[in-house]
Amino acid sequence: MIELRFAGGLLPAIAQDAQTREVLMMAWINEEAFQETLVTGYATYFSRSRRKLWRKGEQSGCRQKIVDILVDCDEDCVIYLVEQAGGAACHTGHRSCFYRRCDAQTQTLVETSEPVFDPEKVYHSKESASK
Amino acid sequence: MIELRFAGGLLPAIAQDAQTREVLMMAWINEEAFQETLVTGYATYFSRSRRKLWRKGEQSGCRQKIVDILVDCDEDCVIYLVEQAGGAACHTGHRSCFYRRCDAQTQTLVETSEPVFDPEKVYHSKESASK
Repeated sequence: MIELRFAGGLLPAIAQDAQTREVLMMAWINEEAFQETLVTGYATYFSRSRRKLWRKGEQSGCRQKIVDILVDCDEDCVIYLVEQAGGAACHTGHRSCFYRRCDAQTQTLVETSEPVFDPEKVYHSKESASK
Repeated sequence: MIELRFAGGLLPAIAQDAQTREVLMMAWINEEAFQETLVTGYATYFSRSRRKLWRKGEQSGCRQKIVDILVDCDEDCVIYLVEQAGGAACHTGHRSCFYRRCDAQTQTLVETSEPVFDPEKVYHSKESASK
């Protein structure tokens, strides 16, 4: 039994492309989400806004197949190494949620990539990316 | 001015090797830590246990020079793309805090790498890696 330090709460889970090591997203897990991920082999999170398990890609098809799970030194953060289905992890249609960088000169956020799909067409019933 | 959604609290910051894209650690930032990071060009976090700014590597020398900062779709998580000094980010002496993987068969955590230094020798005055 692998025990993480939830301390009754939630932990951050980082989803990273198992091949390229691109960080795709960060979301939250509780004990139940973690155990479901271990059993099913697909990334499950806990939606803070909806207060329930969030089976990533259940509606959009953009599921994340688990390749490996890494745990940090304090056992209070995990990395899901995944194969991302559907081309993108982000509800905006970008491959990664981290599609903007801080531009020091203009003090603004600048996009670094284009969306790979139109979120309107993928999220028919609007899978929220809310954490 | 780049504004993140701190909502009076802390946000997770993921430190990632700018070259290899290995995730080195996850720690927390508040507004002050983020602004200091932007100004100094070195990763600053907020230590939850010590309740104060944590200038990573201040004592150990294992500083993290900022190459770029990425922000997620919700503006409530950032990635510090860094050059890691001293060979390791983790207080255990491992390059990454994520040096263990979940082994499904044995249901245990298995180390995937060796420490690159002896933490006893590096953390003379014991820089805590506490978040």
